[in-house]
Amino acid sequence: MKKKQLIEQIKVKKSFLCIGLDVDLEKIPQNLLDLEDPIFEFNKQIIDATHDLAVAYKPNTAFYEAYGIKGWESLQKTIEYINKNYPKIFTIADAKRGDIGNTSTRYAKAFFEDMKFDSVTVAPYMGNDSVEPFLAFADKFTILLALTSNKGGLDFQVLKDENGITFYEKVLQESQSWKNSNQLMYVVGATRPDYFKKIRKIVPNSFLLVPGIGAQGGSLQEVCRYGLTDEIGLLINSSRGIIYASNKTDFAEKAREKALELQQQMAEILN
Amino acid sequence: MKKKQLIEQIKVKKSFLCIGLDVDLEKIPQNLLDLEDPIFEFNKQIIDATHDLAVAYKPNTAFYEAYGIKGWESLQKTIEYINKNYPKIFTIADAKRGDIGNTSTRYAKAFFEDMKFDSVTVAPYMGNDSVEPFLAFADKFTILLALTSNKGGLDFQVLKDENGITFYEKVLQESQSWKNSNQLMYVVGATRPDYFKKIRKIVPNSFLLVPGIGAQGGSLQEVCRYGLTDEIGLLINSSRGIIYASNKTDFAEKAREKALELQQQMAEILN
Repeated sequence: MKKKQLIEQIKVKKSFLCIGLDVDLEKIPQNLLDLEDPIFEFNKQIIDATHDLAVAYKPNTAFYEAYGIKGWESLQKTIEYINKNYPKIFTIADAKRGDIGNTSTRYAKAFFEDMKFDSVTVAPYMGNDSVEPFLAFADKFTILLALTSNKGGLDFQVLKDENGITFYEKVLQESQSWKNSNQLMYVVGATRPDYFKKIRKIVPNSFLLVPGIGAQGGSLQEVCRYGLTDEIGLLINSSRGIIYASNKTDFAEKAREKALELQQQMAEILN
Repeated sequence: MKKKQLIEQIKVKKSFLCIGLDVDLEKIPQNLLDLEDPIFEFNKQIIDATHDLAVAYKPNTAFYEAYGIKGWESLQKTIEYINKNYPKIFTIADAKRGDIGNTSTRYAKAFFEDMKFDSVTVAPYMGNDSVEPFLAFADKFTILLALTSNKGGLDFQVLKDENGITFYEKVLQESQSWKNSNQLMYVVGATRPDYFKKIRKIVPNSFLLVPGIGAQGGSLQEVCRYGLTDEIGLLINSSRGIIYASNKTDFAEKAREKALELQQQMAEILN
């Protein structure tokens, strides 16, 4: 997918909502467990109920790996289902991968070529040559961890260097000079609204994937205040707040209600 | 596995060699490709030929993920084969995972409980609460990236903070205060021999997993000079240098020769 197409979709749907498909068998309606592939069935119903309100879906690979080969099959079926039925949706493999050059290429192939995701999240710790292999894939996006929403995100990411520049700022700055950096996006947690102003000075136009709205306590309005750009530049993720709105047979309907709430707030912000 | 058992094995075998099982279908003997599971067959022959010379095997998950569900099946069969036939071998899932708390728990379950690896490599960028879920598993080890062997390892890891402490040193220091930190090991590249003296001041007793010997240019003697401790404290990894010593039908035999060379150098160092 091209960035232009993503922006178009945002404008058409009046939404920059990303829905996190972090499926936990203990949290889904228990009647689904009798089916052959409860995870895929759950995802399918969530997707069918929300596809007109969201512009992106983001399965976190950990939730699929935890169920072994069966989990990978569910992930594969989920991405195939989205690509076949809703090809304009932007897909994110939230995998937080990253390794030395030739090894990163393997991960990139797995997510971009075999599974046909539009993007993958990548950890920056190993530097340039661990990320550029992902950037080498045309029309695919690499979403680099910058400032994460969890408590431990403050352990290292906001440490300052000799010049007073924090580590996450360094990641933003440096990565902008990497090859094909126009295919970079960044993860910035909604739990850090104070930082968005600073971040927009370094990456004024990059798309930011923002987790942490809802369950983790981040506010949509706060994030948009400084995060929003002329080309929108934001994908706001909600996972648990939407997909587990109900654990009964009405889960898809309730998920739609929650997604609609967020979409309506977004439509208002976009106007 | 307990650390004591790993150290015992090192002493019995006079080896602290780890063999990286990074299987690339383009590099293995082409006659294997006719078999049902060429990756597993390759691994099985490498393991059978080297198990008395190595104390650890380290499949890098990227190489398996790249082949989709079939790749995960090969990985599963490989770890089962090692655990069944050579239960004293230390196994490392080189996965470089890490995510927010509940998500890291998923990864930990996948590698420790389902696949029964003894250890997994983890990226430190997201801090404490992204790593502690791995450390919560008894008799399992979390191998944190500290100073990696690749060129990009210098992009961020050696940046200095206001007090002149580099980022990788901060990772070593901070992580020592985390819960169950006695189950931590660290990745330090063999391409950085100058750093081992400094590293040993911060983590005098921790095991270091050292990639970068051979193909990447690191020297065993240089690493051991400052890296070795009373309890050995080193696992030296070689991947390509051993497993691709030959791409003909004698590949296992040639792999054994290369492993034996390294093991003999190690035996000499241990004496």
